[in-house]
Amino acid sequence: MKKQDLKIRAFVAPTPTVISAAYDENGRADACTLAFVMMSSHHPPCVTIAINATAKRKTLKSILSSGAFTVGYPSTDQAKEADYLGVETGYHADKLKEIGYTTTEAKCVHAPVIDQIKLTLECKVVHTVTVGSHTQITGEIVNIQASEAIVDAQGKVMMDKLNPIIYNEEAFTYHALGECVSEAFKPGAAFKKDLMGK
Amino acid sequence: MKKQDLKIRAFVAPTPTVISAAYDENGRADACTLAFVMMSSHHPPCVTIAINATAKRKTLKSILSSGAFTVGYPSTDQAKEADYLGVETGYHADKLKEIGYTTTEAKCVHAPVIDQIKLTLECKVVHTVTVGSHTQITGEIVNIQASEAIVDAQGKVMMDKLNPIIYNEEAFTYHALGECVSEAFKPGAAFKKDLMGK
Repeated sequence: MKKQDLKIRAFVAPTPTVISAAYDENGRADACTLAFVMMSSHHPPCVTIAINATAKRKTLKSILSSGAFTVGYPSTDQAKEADYLGVETGYHADKLKEIGYTTTEAKCVHAPVIDQIKLTLECKVVHTVTVGSHTQITGEIVNIQASEAIVDAQGKVMMDKLNPIIYNEEAFTYHALGECVSEAFKPGAAFKKDLMGK
Repeated sequence: MKKQDLKIRAFVAPTPTVISAAYDENGRADACTLAFVMMSSHHPPCVTIAINATAKRKTLKSILSSGAFTVGYPSTDQAKEADYLGVETGYHADKLKEIGYTTTEAKCVHAPVIDQIKLTLECKVVHTVTVGSHTQITGEIVNIQASEAIVDAQGKVMMDKLNPIIYNEEAFTYHALGECVSEAFKPGAAFKKDLMGK
């Protein structure tokens, strides 16, 4: 295929869309929406987020001072609220209060769980590093809280009930998860077996 | 809403699905599929991936020894090949050769670009750290190569042409990107304006 070079930019797409939250030094809950998030370890289970350090995000300050944060998954019907939490800064407004969201302290860390969010990871900061414009924060996941309505009998999250928001940085759009195109691991394992039998 | 605690596990879902690739010390191209990936800086543009260190992934070894890697985006019709690259190990097989994929050296780093992949980031390693079971590698994006067929007149990637694979770790399934539910930034900015006018 014929290829061309594109303008250099931070590119990972599509990405999940999450709301990170932490208490500031006065116990106020800060929250900001971000797409810079990934799993980063299985043992112990960890998640890593990156937050703009140069823009002095209030949530970043609160995560670093408290040593804890939560990662919440907004649903597609919460796109407006999630978008606002990414656009406004906590230095100018009590953002969660403005949108009518309430919080409860997490069970295992000192960080706020947003009551209206259906799935939340409770995280303890275990590593931080600033690379370029962003600070990368790795949190050990010490608890996961989910609405009973989105969990199946095996304790797995049903994505069609959570309806997570997927972000497309190329078009500045939010999307739903699309149709299943394949199982994971089974096709690759079958392929491996076929290749070994050649 | 009534909430319950879930078994603690690495949880970020849905995630992108990418193929990281690097040359080993003999110049052979290694590649492995992973879902542990995120944008991590705008200035300079960086991407961070995490690869299992305890399982001694050959691609990890090659990235660390060469100081460079690529991040490629398989399309939904390449799910079988992508799955195989995640299931098999480069210590047992020349995986790319097995599936009939070929590579060309990247333009700006010493790393392989998979010819059959429509979108590839060329990355120079700028930071590494091992936290828990995985090594996190941050790469500065020094070039992006895309098939002309997936790029619009503004130089943006058309997601409906790339058809990237989205991974759901909860159900072990691969998905397409779903319908657009909202624009980003505009709803939040309008909401902010409304709140300020109250």
